[in-house]
Amino acid sequence: MPGHLVILSGGLDSTVCMALAAGDGGRPPLALSFDYGQSHRIELDRAATVARWFGSEHLVVALDATQWGGSALTDPTIAIPDGGVPDGGVPDGGAPDGAATSADAIPATYGPARNLIFLSIALGVAEARDLDAAYLGVNAVDYSGYPDCRPEFVAAFRAVAGLAQKRAVEGRPVEVLTPLIDLAKADIIGVGLRLGAPLHLSWSCYRPGPLPCGRCDACVLRAQGFARAGCADPALAARDGPDA
Amino acid sequence: MPGHLVILSGGLDSTVCMALAAGDGGRPPLALSFDYGQSHRIELDRAATVARWFGSEHLVVALDATQWGGSALTDPTIAIPDGGVPDGGVPDGGAPDGAATSADAIPATYGPARNLIFLSIALGVAEARDLDAAYLGVNAVDYSGYPDCRPEFVAAFRAVAGLAQKRAVEGRPVEVLTPLIDLAKADIIGVGLRLGAPLHLSWSCYRPGPLPCGRCDACVLRAQGFARAGCADPALAARDGPDA
Repeated sequence: MPGHLVILSGGLDSTVCMALAAGDGGRPPLALSFDYGQSHRIELDRAATVARWFGSEHLVVALDATQWGGSALTDPTIAIPDGGVPDGGVPDGGAPDGAATSADAIPATYGPARNLIFLSIALGVAEARDLDAAYLGVNAVDYSGYPDCRPEFVAAFRAVAGLAQKRAVEGRPVEVLTPLIDLAKADIIGVGLRLGAPLHLSWSCYRPGPLPCGRCDACVLRAQGFARAGCADPALAARDGPDA
Repeated sequence: MPGHLVILSGGLDSTVCMALAAGDGGRPPLALSFDYGQSHRIELDRAATVARWFGSEHLVVALDATQWGGSALTDPTIAIPDGGVPDGGVPDGGAPDGAATSADAIPATYGPARNLIFLSIALGVAEARDLDAAYLGVNAVDYSGYPDCRPEFVAAFRAVAGLAQKRAVEGRPVEVLTPLIDLAKADIIGVGLRLGAPLHLSWSCYRPGPLPCGRCDACVLRAQGFARAGCADPALAARDGPDA
């Protein structure tokens, strides 16, 4: 029976990845989250809730990225920017086609080597647990301009993953799947709604909560996505209650 | 002033890397070690001593790889093999020229994606600290047959690192240096002796100590190296005392 792993932040994209992996046969996917000192630690509670919703084991790996910082998400002295993402997703100078990103367009929420670290650990976990694929919910359309969300980064990761693993030497490498990479946020929401993914449980905001700030890049991208998908954000509906 | 980082296990190779990085100008290198649940946690004490010897900051990152295991170094139910490395370094079926490693030749001490995880975190730390290079003391001659010690793995890591970093987008990527990769163990020892590296402080054994077991692959490779270099292992001399 095939087994899969999903890197689950508790956000919209990784929640949709859970639904895709769950629909890919086999047992419920292993949900892997990182407790890395993020400002929005509330996402870990949401990730736990999403994992439970799918009947998945939830593995939380602690890695204290505040030891090195370099990101607004792990260093409280760096401000989380507001409104850095204009309508259309990628900031000025960014490259929605995956071409070279401009350094100026990379916001302060960029975490040094973050997706590389997360994917590497995911690969190790998947290999140790003998799982066949690791899902990462990156997308390179409505995104924040992070270099480690681009298709060429993912392709290069697949290449190094194919050399690092014992399983690859055995001819059965753990696959690295990024099914959302070419989708706009509205399309990801559409996929999630079609699959019945628990979008109402997901959390995107970079701030600590308890309510989404509505201003950070993650909130702005999420709101744009739901507006384009032509439906209300069920997480906000759940928050506001039936009278809102 | 350039700054460097060295992934310091406390073993022979990474201690020699410290000496190379220290000789590369600038301030003492940042020493980065991983407390990952390894059987031979004693290496962390040695790493701290080596870092102190160089006047380096020692950053110890905790990452509990026993959560996933899959290696004799992180799962006490998997035995650490004895004598798996014949004289000549690479086990039967291994590939000293960096060609495809045989899965049978990969010993149980292989840790899933271990070097990939360590290098990824090193890259993040180096970028956050604005350091210009990260040293890793892998070598693919007298080694244990791990797939993630091969030159093609390192080349593929450089490629993905060049895409993951904001610094790369800025045209000044953190470099990944593996100066020992083509050297035999005896040559590495020779470099260390020439540079005055504190080889007497280093620890290679996979077992918990307090003395090296003399039987595991790491002990065997080390002993072969000193024998070929034509000198006594100063760590053993320090252990045995002047009368031994």
